[in-house]
Amino acid sequence: MIGRLNHVAIAVKDLDAATAVYRDTLGAKVTEPLPQPEHGVTVVFVELPNSKVELMSPLGENSTIQGFVDKNPAGGIHHVCYEVEDIIAARDQMKAAGARVLGTGEPRIGAHGKPVIFLHPKDFLGTLVELEQV
Amino acid sequence: MIGRLNHVAIAVKDLDAATAVYRDTLGAKVTEPLPQPEHGVTVVFVELPNSKVELMSPLGENSTIQGFVDKNPAGGIHHVCYEVEDIIAARDQMKAAGARVLGTGEPRIGAHGKPVIFLHPKDFLGTLVELEQV
Repeated sequence: MIGRLNHVAIAVKDLDAATAVYRDTLGAKVTEPLPQPEHGVTVVFVELPNSKVELMSPLGENSTIQGFVDKNPAGGIHHVCYEVEDIIAARDQMKAAGARVLGTGEPRIGAHGKPVIFLHPKDFLGTLVELEQV
Repeated sequence: MIGRLNHVAIAVKDLDAATAVYRDTLGAKVTEPLPQPEHGVTVVFVELPNSKVELMSPLGENSTIQGFVDKNPAGGIHHVCYEVEDIIAARDQMKAAGARVLGTGEPRIGAHGKPVIFLHPKDFLGTLVELEQV
């Protein structure tokens, strides 16, 4: 079912410093920071030939990643995102397999304007997994 | 400098159970387990259209990932691997930028039979980074 590895998301406190690591030290192409207040994050996309790394820092007072960066002050991988063709079918398949879908269980519109669900890390090898319909 | 996202590596205690999560729940194509005694791991490759996930479990008594799986019994993302054209040039660029190369600093032959280096997580946003010459 899952298709492409859409992105690896790394959450950090200091987005400028994180961008410099990927742009200057690793020599990758990076975008300008994109505030996404509806998701409580500011994002920089690291554009690799076959996939993306997304650098995220908390935005606003109720960011969903604030707890993560407090616990991981040096930063850390927050989630991985795989593409699916049909988010409802994917959601139903996850539930049928006994895997936990976070939140209400209904897809919501993700950071790329497409429907997404998030899956519980304890059911996916300690990894927060996002599924995105493309 | 960095090119493709070669793989995301997830370390687990129970490779069969982890393989079932990716094969059965997520519906991905997976390979047979490949013991790599020289690296102290057994690996299953999850083949995605644009990249790979590598599921790894400890093999032997001195596996370099034993400590990681002891600390993360549910599993977790162990490292990400980016491709580079010239591992020596990449190593020198990392050192010039003040980033720490693990081990002796000399490339060694990695799990795919190609020269690799590993970079210190504290210099790369809390993420263990492998660079692989392709």
